[in-house]
Parts: sequence; C-alpha cells; structure tokens
Amino acid sequence: MPIPVITYDDHRLTVLDQTRLPQEERLVPLEDLDAVAHAIRTLQVRGAPLIGVTAAYGTCVALRNCADRAAVQAAAPRVLEVLRGTRPTAVNLFWALDRMEAAVAALPEADWLAVLEEEARRVHDATLRQDAAMAEHGQTLLRPGARCITHCNTGPLATGGLGTALGVLIGAHKALGDIHVYVDETRPRWQGARLTTWELGNNGVPYTLITDNAAATLMRQGGIHSVWVGADRIAANGDTANKIGTYGLAVAARHHGVPFYVVAPTSTIDPALPDGDRIPIEERDPGEVARPEGHALAPANARAWNPAFDVTPAELIAAIVTEKGVHTGPHYDLRPLCD
Amino acid sequence: MPIPVITYDDHRLTVLDQTRLPQEERLVPLEDLDAVAHAIRTLQVRGAPLIGVTAAYGTCVALRNCADRAAVQAAAPRVLEVLRGTRPTAVNLFWALDRMEAAVAALPEADWLAVLEEEARRVHDATLRQDAAMAEHGQTLLRPGARCITHCNTGPLATGGLGTALGVLIGAHKALGDIHVYVDETRPRWQGARLTTWELGNNGVPYTLITDNAAATLMRQGGIHSVWVGADRIAANGDTANKIGTYGLAVAARHHGVPFYVVAPTSTIDPALPDGDRIPIEERDPGEVARPEGHALAPANARAWNPAFDVTPAELIAAIVTEKGVHTGPHYDLRPLCD
Repeated sequence: MPIPVITYDDHRLTVLDQTRLPQEERLVPLEDLDAVAHAIRTLQVRGAPLIGVTAAYGTCVALRNCADRAAVQAAAPRVLEVLRGTRPTAVNLFWALDRMEAAVAALPEADWLAVLEEEARRVHDATLRQDAAMAEHGQTLLRPGARCITHCNTGPLATGGLGTALGVLIGAHKALGDIHVYVDETRPRWQGARLTTWELGNNGVPYTLITDNAAATLMRQGGIHSVWVGADRIAANGDTANKIGTYGLAVAARHHGVPFYVVAPTSTIDPALPDGDRIPIEERDPGEVARPEGHALAPANARAWNPAFDVTPAELIAAIVTEKGVHTGPHYDLRPLCD
Repeated sequence: MPIPVITYDDHRLTVLDQTRLPQEERLVPLEDLDAVAHAIRTLQVRGAPLIGVTAAYGTCVALRNCADRAAVQAAAPRVLEVLRGTRPTAVNLFWALDRMEAAVAALPEADWLAVLEEEARRVHDATLRQDAAMAEHGQTLLRPGARCITHCNTGPLATGGLGTALGVLIGAHKALGDIHVYVDETRPRWQGARLTTWELGNNGVPYTLITDNAAATLMRQGGIHSVWVGADRIAANGDTANKIGTYGLAVAARHHGVPFYVVAPTSTIDPALPDGDRIPIEERDPGEVARPEGHALAPANARAWNPAFDVTPAELIAAIVTEKGVHTGPHYDLRPLCD
C-alpha cells in the first residue's frame, strides 16, 4: 500500500513532505492558510497538477472556520490572493483557484463547506482521470524495450494520481514491458535524483540516474528512443514552460533526432498566452545553486542565477499528450482543447 | 600573494588540495608514490596540464631514494606504470611521463636526481609558457563587454600556470576589460561552483554561477558572445574529450549560433588518434552522482552512470587555441602541431 501523496478526510488536509524523500516518508497536516502556502512555496508539495489540487483543498482549509456564507465570501479574496502568490509559473494553480473562486461566488447559504469541498474534490478527481487518460494515450508512442530520458519528477508525486510523463513510462512498463528510464538528477532541487528514482524503484521500473549534463552524451551514444517531460504552463502555440534544463534537453534531442514529448493535462494550457515569451518564470533563492542542500560549495559571496523553469519552443516538441489525445507538432493550436 | 597550486623545492613536492577549496586552502606534501597517485586519483590535483606536471615531479619523488642510476632504471617502470594508471583520459599525463621515461633511459651516472628534476621542471616551465601564449592568442577572439560561458575549471588551478580557457578569460578581462563569465557548476564534482568561482573572484572578474542545465536557456535569451572550455585529450581531427557536460554545451552553442572555443596546449593533442571515438573515457564511482558531497539524495540502491568526460566532435568547435595559435575548424588536422 503506497503512502498517499495527498489526502483530504474529515475536513483535514495532509500531504507527503516531498522535501524529505526518499530518506523519510513524513506526512504533514496543513491546518491553515499559512501552512498551505508554506508547503507550496518550499516544495513540500510540488508538480503543477498537485499544486492545483493542494490549492483547491487549501481553500477549504483556509475558509472552513468561517461563521457563514457571508464570512466566506468576505474572506475568500485574500485567501485566493495568498494562494495565487505562492508560485507564479504553474498555471494549474490558477486554474484550480479560478474554479474555487467560482464556487465561492455561487455558494449556497446552507452546507456551504460541503459545496466548497465538493468542488475541491472535483479538481482532484479530474486530475486522477486525466492522468489515466494521458497514460493510455502516451503509451501509443512507446514500444517494448524503449530506453527513455526524463527530467524532473512527473510521477504520482507530481499529481496525486498516476503522474504525467512518468505516469506514461510507468504505465508503459507495466503494459508493454521492458522500459528503461534514464533519470536526469535535475539541479538545483534534485527532483529526479530524489523523487523519480524513488517512484521508479517503487514501481519496479529499471532506471539509471545521470547528471543533467550527461543526457546529450547518452543521446550521442545512440539507442535512446524518446525524451519525456511534464509542463508547468503551455502557451496556445505549444511553447512549454517546464523545470530548468528542459530546454537544453529538447535542443539535444533535436540535434540527435530523438523525439521530445510533453505530457500534461489541458489544465496546464494557458489559452490566453499566444506564445511562451510571456510565461512568467519564477526565480528562486540563488542559494539553491550556490549551497546545494545547505552545503557551502561556492565562495560565500558567489553570485548565482536560479530560474526555476525555462521555455521550450513548440518547434522542438514532437507531440504534446493531454487527456484528450496525442497532439503532434510542430505547429500547435491548443485553444480548442480548453473549451 | 596567491597560494601556489604546486611547488617543488628542495626535493619536496607540495600541492594545494583542490577538494577542499574554496572553504580551506590546505597544502598537502606528496612524499611518496602512493601519495602522488592518491592525489591524482582523488582530484586533490586535477586539470589535464596540472596532472602532467604533478606526474613529472611525482616521478622524481618516487625515485629520489634510489641508491644509484641502476636502481632508478630498475624501479622506474613500475613507478611510471602506477602513475600512468591513475587516470585514463587526460593525455598530458602520458606526455609528461613519456618525457620522464626518456630522461630515465638517458640518465647519467652522476647527478642523476638533478637531471630527473630538471626534466620535470622543464615540463612545468613548458606549461607556464604555453599558458601565457594561449592567453595571448585566445584574447584575439574576444572583445570588451563579452559575456561568456565556461564549464569545469580551466584556470590556474588546472595547470599551475595561468590556465587554459579560463586563463584566456582572466587575461582578456585584464587587457580588454569588462568580461562577464557565466560559470557552469559542473556536476558531479562541482569544479565550476567550487574552483572557477573562487579563481574569478580572486582575479576580480565578474561572474554568475549557474546550474549546468541553465546554460542553454542563457544562450536562448541572447547576448552570449562565446563558450570557452579546456580539453583532456584532442584527437588529430579536433574531436575533443573534456569534462562531462562539454558536449551538451557545444550542441546548445551550435543551436544558438554561439562560437564554441577549446583552449589547450599541444601536449593535449594525441596525434595517434584519428578521431574521438577511441578516446578512453574514465567512469568514476556512481556515488559521486547519487550521493553528492556524501549527502544521500537518491535511494540507497539507486543505479547511476558517472562518465567523467564526454567527446565533442570537431564540427561543433569554432576554433582550438593552442600555444602555437588559433586553429579554426570545422576541419582540423592537428598532427603538424605535435612535431
């Protein structure tokens, strides 16, 4: 029985602290707005879809002690503002909070908490269903024996369901057999080294951990079937923001003729953005680069640059897999998927 | 007065322990063959030219207690074998030891230690002169205000002189002004984060530390003038082995039309190798990837791949700078430089 990534039972929200994995499987109760915002900001919960689910349940947590509907509607704007301010890039956060905002606006006087919680549950359920559909669609791009590269973590930990890109690979290993995954360690926060390795091991999928900078050489040696990543925000034309390092991996894949696949639910698409140039990119503490895991490596006064994400232009993406199917490039118009 | 990277005085060899930098400037005496071999294997001394210099002096250290010339000539084969076995990729090691082997073969009966030490000193002096010439030649490819990317460490710490690629950049900053260096952290051993930042800071050159996987995004943002790296072995056709991550950086540079320069003395060229496919690539302990700085990040049983170097094909290299000049590609025949 695997440990749950996120649960909401009896009005209580609990998440698995992903900053402690794989050494420690520690569940953290998120009992108020501050705790929810802190968990998102510090990456205790991360992964674009899971951030959305957490924010939806977090809205319920933040509002559950209100006296009545009027109090909820008075308090909600600040709650939504705080949660929207936690991380700027992943659009699923805003998608989930827009849904919660609409629910607040239409709230009945009686049973208002049940209605809010029902909406959050629907956000979560949608994620679970989308993951299953993406795993099905993505599998059609694989074959038994495929050796694949992935970046960051896009498994169950990233969604609370089966995962996105890693969900496809885990599902393909079960359905087709014999998938081998090369895991980029994913500096600066090591999501590949810490989380993806753990999930692949838990699911019996053979893998090899590599430094991010070894992926191009692996492709040059030959035998890599495809590269699989998730997304934090996808513009209408297919330009995709994802963990820093994704773009360099896509450039290397293009150079070697290796297909590069993005897997994300349609809630990751931002139809209002015509292209990726306007996706806001979160810049995090330079200490994540200069002092990895608190270990002082660089000189104390070293200046570092720490963008959390980069943007991969659509022309480098062979296909985008959503819960609605496999959409192939190089020219995308993803707006109809958001209707 | 900067701390010396390597000294040989009064028959005593001392090196700066590069695994402790920048936190601690610790000098280590290398008093016998085991200590010299250990220092090279564990990267207390690293950088292809400095490995050569260390091996040359190390031969003197290993043989200095011999009773006479006959004893030296009897003991030398094993000493040379041990030192040649320390690291397989950097050819400067073999170049320096071939010179020491020739000196042993031609050793006079009297003053044999002085003759050996003189040959080691010549290896060191050649490195110093080559560095100065490379810095001059390389500068012609730069201009004031240039923003450059570099990988690994190729400064004074890598040669015991001015350095190779970083020597060019430090020299250009002094001569032309206003060079900004983006420093790849260089996983898994962090030579960029630990050593290159320290050397640039010591020399007053502005720099920004980045994760290796951010370099491609930096190029996409524009304004990067050129990429500068060293080499551990260069085949006759210009194919270049260098620290893992160099190849991916070269692919990204090509994709963005950014010139990619290799700086290395001609002792780094292996004229016997027609191309890079036959360069032996050292594979190091997977723990360097899975447990960075001893910090258990990946699951305990994680499998990892840890090649220390990769090979960049000559076609991606805009120019190779040696002490003899600037050699431009994409087609190289470097054998005449080794005459």
